[in-house]
Amino acid sequence: MSELRIGIIGVGAMGADHAERIVRRTSGARLVAVSDPDAARAEELASRLSARVVADPLALIGARDVDAVILASPGFAHAEQLFACLEHGKPVLCEKPLTMDAASSLQVVEAEHKLGRQLIQVGFMRRFDPEYTALKQLLDSGELGRPLLLHNVHRNKANGPGFRSEMIVRDSMVHEVDVARWLLGSEISRITVHAPKPTSAVPDGVLDPQFAVFEMANGAMADVEVFVNFQVGYEVRCEAVAERGSATIGLGAGVLTRAAGHWGGAMPEDFRIRFDRAYDIEVQRWVEAVGRDEIDGPSAWDGYAAAAVCEAGLASLSTGQPVTVDLADRQAVLG
Amino acid sequence: MSELRIGIIGVGAMGADHAERIVRRTSGARLVAVSDPDAARAEELASRLSARVVADPLALIGARDVDAVILASPGFAHAEQLFACLEHGKPVLCEKPLTMDAASSLQVVEAEHKLGRQLIQVGFMRRFDPEYTALKQLLDSGELGRPLLLHNVHRNKANGPGFRSEMIVRDSMVHEVDVARWLLGSEISRITVHAPKPTSAVPDGVLDPQFAVFEMANGAMADVEVFVNFQVGYEVRCEAVAERGSATIGLGAGVLTRAAGHWGGAMPEDFRIRFDRAYDIEVQRWVEAVGRDEIDGPSAWDGYAAAAVCEAGLASLSTGQPVTVDLADRQAVLG
Amino acid sequence: MSELRIGIIGVGAMGADHAERIVRRTSGARLVAVSDPDAARAEELASRLSARVVADPLALIGARDVDAVILASPGFAHAEQLFACLEHGKPVLCEKPLTMDAASSLQVVEAEHKLGRQLIQVGFMRRFDPEYTALKQLLDSGELGRPLLLHNVHRNKANGPGFRSEMIVRDSMVHEVDVARWLLGSEISRITVHAPKPTSAVPDGVLDPQFAVFEMANGAMADVEVFVNFQVGYEVRCEAVAERGSATIGLGAGVLTRAAGHWGGAMPEDFRIRFDRAYDIEVQRWVEAVGRDEIDGPSAWDGYAAAAVCEAGLASLSTGQPVTVDLADRQAVLG
Amino acid sequence: MSELRIGIIGVGAMGADHAERIVRRTSGARLVAVSDPDAARAEELASRLSARVVADPLALIGARDVDAVILASPGFAHAEQLFACLEHGKPVLCEKPLTMDAASSLQVVEAEHKLGRQLIQVGFMRRFDPEYTALKQLLDSGELGRPLLLHNVHRNKANGPGFRSEMIVRDSMVHEVDVARWLLGSEISRITVHAPKPTSAVPDGVLDPQFAVFEMANGAMADVEVFVNFQVGYEVRCEAVAERGSATIGLGAGVLTRAAGHWGGAMPEDFRIRFDRAYDIEVQRWVEAVGRDEIDGPSAWDGYAAAAVCEAGLASLSTGQPVTVDLADRQAVLG
Repeated sequence: MSELRIGIIGVGAMGADHAERIVRRTSGARLVAVSDPDAARAEELASRLSARVVADPLALIGARDVDAVILASPGFAHAEQLFACLEHGKPVLCEKPLTMDAASSLQVVEAEHKLGRQLIQVGFMRRFDPEYTALKQLLDSGELGRPLLLHNVHRNKANGPGFRSEMIVRDSMVHEVDVARWLLGSEISRITVHAPKPTSAVPDGVLDPQFAVFEMANGAMADVEVFVNFQVGYEVRCEAVAERGSATIGLGAGVLTRAAGHWGGAMPEDFRIRFDRAYDIEVQRWVEAVGRDEIDGPSAWDGYAAAAVCEAGLASLSTGQPVTVDLADRQAVLG
Repeated sequence: MSELRIGIIGVGAMGADHAERIVRRTSGARLVAVSDPDAARAEELASRLSARVVADPLALIGARDVDAVILASPGFAHAEQLFACLEHGKPVLCEKPLTMDAASSLQVVEAEHKLGRQLIQVGFMRRFDPEYTALKQLLDSGELGRPLLLHNVHRNKANGPGFRSEMIVRDSMVHEVDVARWLLGSEISRITVHAPKPTSAVPDGVLDPQFAVFEMANGAMADVEVFVNFQVGYEVRCEAVAERGSATIGLGAGVLTRAAGHWGGAMPEDFRIRFDRAYDIEVQRWVEAVGRDEIDGPSAWDGYAAAAVCEAGLASLSTGQPVTVDLADRQAVLG
Repeated sequence: MSELRIGIIGVGAMGADHAERIVRRTSGARLVAVSDPDAARAEELASRLSARVVADPLALIGARDVDAVILASPGFAHAEQLFACLEHGKPVLCEKPLTMDAASSLQVVEAEHKLGRQLIQVGFMRRFDPEYTALKQLLDSGELGRPLLLHNVHRNKANGPGFRSEMIVRDSMVHEVDVARWLLGSEISRITVHAPKPTSAVPDGVLDPQFAVFEMANGAMADVEVFVNFQVGYEVRCEAVAERGSATIGLGAGVLTRAAGHWGGAMPEDFRIRFDRAYDIEVQRWVEAVGRDEIDGPSAWDGYAAAAVCEAGLASLSTGQPVTVDLADRQAVLG
Repeated sequence: MSELRIGIIGVGAMGADHAERIVRRTSGARLVAVSDPDAARAEELASRLSARVVADPLALIGARDVDAVILASPGFAHAEQLFACLEHGKPVLCEKPLTMDAASSLQVVEAEHKLGRQLIQVGFMRRFDPEYTALKQLLDSGELGRPLLLHNVHRNKANGPGFRSEMIVRDSMVHEVDVARWLLGSEISRITVHAPKPTSAVPDGVLDPQFAVFEMANGAMADVEVFVNFQVGYEVRCEAVAERGSATIGLGAGVLTRAAGHWGGAMPEDFRIRFDRAYDIEVQRWVEAVGRDEIDGPSAWDGYAAAAVCEAGLASLSTGQPVTVDLADRQAVLG
């Protein structure tokens, strides 16, 4: 497989993060071009990551050497850029929202449908979070019976100036909209958004927190607290309540289930599950260190010291007595 | 930076896992060659991952197009292969143990030292585990004062036939040897290995579990339970006890600290920390799906449905009443 | 202080439990009389706990040697029995509900108010649960700022035949009604009860689970899931979300707070907090064993064995070597 | 059963706590006499709790109206007082240690044995802690197989001046000595006490923390960290490792088990288990409030308000719409 050549439109926090991801943590892809109204920002990123800048986002979409596009531009620019991607037949990963309203979103759906090929993927990345996918699998397995209710909590530490109440629905609650549809396998048929008396951390007129109730077409329900000025930190939790048990994620410890007289989680089968990420990081950092003629981890001395301790340990195991470890003088050996 | 061309010696479970890692999850590196006494196993892997087989491991080490080597061969083969790597000036990531005894390990250390360049990194991958590194940072920060004691638990579900008591020390406890040296920043000066009455799950003569006490040169101590036929699952935990608090990892929830009248953990600052891995997976899978002319995630319809719900949500927010979501007929639109 | 002489009306599960509590775990009180339509049940309990049976509940209320009354009769009998207590000036602890509807409850309030003395206490016992009281104290302290939202979960394992949807509101949700009023310090001004598609564990027509939203007079909100056929077990949780943090109880580990970048709980100051209950149980069981000329706990031998180990431990501490414990031959000493 | 009349020797922190316990939280017992070298302290307690002071502890033991004795005097006074109890045939609950050394403890055992009746119970109160008893039951059930190892942690926040290293063994570790003997059902045959480099929170010469290894007669093992100047708070944990799983207590959440691919705890069957203690406290406080012509809990108004909300809730349940709660004006009703 040859590498996928990617262009990114919008290199603010989200787009710059995606650029780093493509270059440093994604195999099979290469960053070739970026576009941003802030030319300096685009230049800085492009030169650091060996890509080029294309001032006009539509030109980037049309460029020969761009195989696929990541849209991290503001939501109001999405519609035009998505239509351009469809026109050029370019696959596009579009950060949410798809567009700013339902009518234009439906036009995008219809235009893509006419092409006869799915080019658009929307950035509801929770579907890829290991905890959410484990929860989805658990629900789909039928082990806990049919899902009845979903309790969601979505909290941010604080929000900047210029924040308005609608942003809670559009930018935050929208994630739970997708989560509810995806986990419960049904469309939302009715929604109620409650606004309790706001926290004093927001200016007059801003409604934060908000509390929404979703009624699903299949009879299930979901509720969601969104509180974007929680002061404490970032927190996303989801508890699915089903006929024979419940399962919670977002506690930092995988899926916590309550079923059949017990609460708890799974013990991993072996070390590869537990230390999967450690191995990835180890190898990635070693590869990078080798490029600098260095090592970036335990040295031969560390291997030797371990061998010496194990030898003494085996002696202790056979006698049941303490055994002194006889280590060479590091200074004498390594100078 | 051009890609690092890697050869892997030994493609059993560990080596095959590293091969997949290089090809699918490591950027900046490429797998070019593998070697294994089991020729069929080597052929299968090589053809699947587009590498070639080199029958003789020393020939692989010497090959022109191999820039660096991963040693996943049995421990008894390490010494010869490490010397070959040093001779050819090839960086090598060597799975533990470095070699089978302290004397030969020391020879490796000395040989590398003579070269004047560190080529050998040992595969104590816990130093790269996010929880262990967070614990190391916490201890090094001095926030909890000087570390006094380390309690380690290392459990495997079960071990295959042919298992012998010494393997616990050599293959399992060796990880805690490195962890204690690294976390406490000191060599182990005395070791006692206790063998309580063994579990009935092992044959006569095998000592499992084992319990070791390490006395460090700097006066700190560490203890470790190793129990490789625990029946339950895989579990690795470490609690560091320091002058003003303790910190535990391996509970699946990051670092759990006890300090100043509280127990608990940290709340992440923002979503990028919490969902970092979800973004990586999302983008990697999208890149791969594009190569197959597909998408592998939320579709344009999902984006549209979210937009429609948010619109209704904003209407509910302004009225405080339930609002029906008016979604287009999916069948009619998408056929 | 002379002992309070108590009569109990209704000795089903709840009333019988209260009877045991008065006799075995409450100091300063004595059970003198019980009343129940099921005469055999009343006789059995009375004879076991050395009380007498009074067939007519109103006669029990009027009895000279009854200083105070516990009402554990069915809700529909409460109004008449409460009025009798007021008439005789007898303090009464009334299990919830006070009465079956708001109108008759208000009459009870007014009748007591005319007496000029509070005789009635309602059995909302969560206000005495150590976790709920700790949560209440935390909220009242102002440490987390003003409370904004309360998320409640109330689950039972299963419900018997004859169960009707209204019972969820009357018998279960009523606890959360009191919890919300008490914790938030405000009356409920509006309520919405949602009924998602019911679990298949209930007969047609029964609505379980239910999900309610309470809007408080002071602008705060509370929501509550009640699910009385959860299959799994009993579970009651409450999370209070305030301006600068949240606090959750019902996880079995005291109050879990999220505030200022951390999650966690409190470490107790000393052993009396941790082992308070153990001391109570120890002494109560010892008192009862003495009455049978027995001991019911560690014996003198246990004290001796501990002394012998500690002596050996002190010897080991001073030498750093293992020390054998030289225990007398138990058989020889005790026969 | 007539009430057991109790005398307490020693009314420092521990003895005063026991005095309160007898008077306020123990049924079937009465405090009649106390003795303490500090006459003022004894007088204050006695007058507050309606007992009398007996200056001479041996006279208290011999007093006609003292049925049983609680020894909370310093350890060095125990031997003489225990012999006096045996002589007078008085049951005695003796705080640990039984006596200060193994030889005198053995004499006490022998003296009691000659009497042919067990009068002495030692205050190892952990055997009554609900978590420890649950752990003991779990181990005795055989569900996890034979216990192999016990890991204990025992931490105090700080210790006062005059503290000496031996106290860690005698006053703190002694609890784990009893725990290990009791949970593992075997005597300790060998002990090693390690002293890592002490925390800087203690004066020169004091060894804190200490780490002990117990080898049991039946081949099992136990280890224990005792750290009495931990700075953080009080913490006691115990993990039992058995052939097919492990179980941990002291996390504040009952028994945490790891078995058969899962970790977790038990869900209670019903509300009485969860709220057992709340009911006890409710009734005890109500009994005491009645003695003061008061109530000490939810009032009739609280019962009325709950009834009104439930009525509105039932209306909402049947319509699916929000329903306003129509509450009487509290001021108008109650003045």
